[in-house]
Amino acid sequence: MSQLDEQVIFATGNVHKYREVSGLLSEYNITIEQEDIKRLEIQSDSLEEIAMASIKNVGGHHGSPVLVEDSGLFIDSLGGFPGPYSSYVYRTIGSIGILQVMKEADSRDASFKSVLAYLNPGNEPLLFPGVVSGRISTSLSGSRGFGFDPIFVPNEGDGRTFGEMTMQEKNRLSHRSKAVRRFALWYLSNR
Amino acid sequence: MSQLDEQVIFATGNVHKYREVSGLLSEYNITIEQEDIKRLEIQSDSLEEIAMASIKNVGGHHGSPVLVEDSGLFIDSLGGFPGPYSSYVYRTIGSIGILQVMKEADSRDASFKSVLAYLNPGNEPLLFPGVVSGRISTSLSGSRGFGFDPIFVPNEGDGRTFGEMTMQEKNRLSHRSKAVRRFALWYLSNR
Repeated sequence: MSQLDEQVIFATGNVHKYREVSGLLSEYNITIEQEDIKRLEIQSDSLEEIAMASIKNVGGHHGSPVLVEDSGLFIDSLGGFPGPYSSYVYRTIGSIGILQVMKEADSRDASFKSVLAYLNPGNEPLLFPGVVSGRISTSLSGSRGFGFDPIFVPNEGDGRTFGEMTMQEKNRLSHRSKAVRRFALWYLSNR
Repeated sequence: MSQLDEQVIFATGNVHKYREVSGLLSEYNITIEQEDIKRLEIQSDSLEEIAMASIKNVGGHHGSPVLVEDSGLFIDSLGGFPGPYSSYVYRTIGSIGILQVMKEADSRDASFKSVLAYLNPGNEPLLFPGVVSGRISTSLSGSRGFGFDPIFVPNEGDGRTFGEMTMQEKNRLSHRSKAVRRFALWYLSNR
C-alpha cells in the first residue's frame, strides 16, 4: 500500500497514446503523468521482449512507478510486417505503402497488438498484453486515431476503420484498451 | 603490437556476410573467425548508433578483438525505408514487397550503407562506414549475393544488380567492401 498516492509515470513521447491510455485509466480512477523519457528500444520480433527491455531501461532511471507501451500492426500475409517496427514503417512508407504491398495479398487478415509494461521500483516488471483481430482495408478511411488506424478494420466492429471511430468507440475494441484494462484491474487489486 | 597474433572475431550469424568480409580481409592477410555471438540490437534510424551499441554489447562478453557489421538499403523516395530494419523487412515482405511499394515512386535512387564496428578490449570502439549509390531495379534480377542484392543496381556498375554479380565483382563496388577496406587499412597500420 506504500505507493497508494504515488504518481504513475507513462513514459511516452506520443501524445495520442497518452490520451488513449490516460482516458481509459481515468475510468478506474487511476491517474498518470506523461513524461517523454528517452529509453533504449531493442530490435526483436517480439513486442513483449521490446517492452521488457524498455521498462527495465526506464526503471533504472526513475524512482516512480513507470508504464511503457509498445504496439504494432501484424499483417498475416506479410509474415507479421510491420510488427514491432510499425512506427518506423509508418514514418517512412506510411499507410499508402502498406496498401501497395497488400495489392496482391491472398489475405487481408491482421491484428493490432499492444504490450503494456509496468515497473514499480524494487519489484519485477510486469507485462499486460492486448490484441484485436481485424483486416486491412483496401483504402484509407478516416483521420482520427493515429498511425495505421485509417487502414485497420476490427472484426468486432461495424466495418469502420479505427480512423473513423471516436476515441471512445476505438477504446471499446482496441488492443491498447485491452492491455490497459488488464493493467488497471491488476493495479487496483495489487498496488 | 600486443594483438599481432590475436584472432579477430567477426560476430555474425550471416554466412554470406562472413564470406564477403573474410574474402576481402584475406586480400590484406587479415584472418577472421566467425562466431554467432548473440547481442543486443537497438532500434534507431542510424546504422552507426546500432553498430556502436552492438559492438559495446559484444565487447562486454568477449576477450578477443571483435568486429560487427550492420548494413541497410536506404531508398530516397521512401524516407530511407527499409534502412536499419532491412533484414526484418527482407524476412517479411522481401524484395517483391519493396518493388510493390516502389510502383508509384518518383525516384528509384537508393544507397546501400554498411558500418563496420571494431573493438579491441580496453580500447574505444571504432566505426568504419561504407556507402554505394544506385537505384532500385524494376524487377528481380539474379540470385547471387543475399538480401536485397537482386533489386539494387549500383551507379558505378554496368547496369547489372548486385544479385547478378560474382562476389568478386560485387566486392569491387559494394558498401561493405568500402567499409572493410577502410578497416583493413586502419588495422594494418594501427594494430
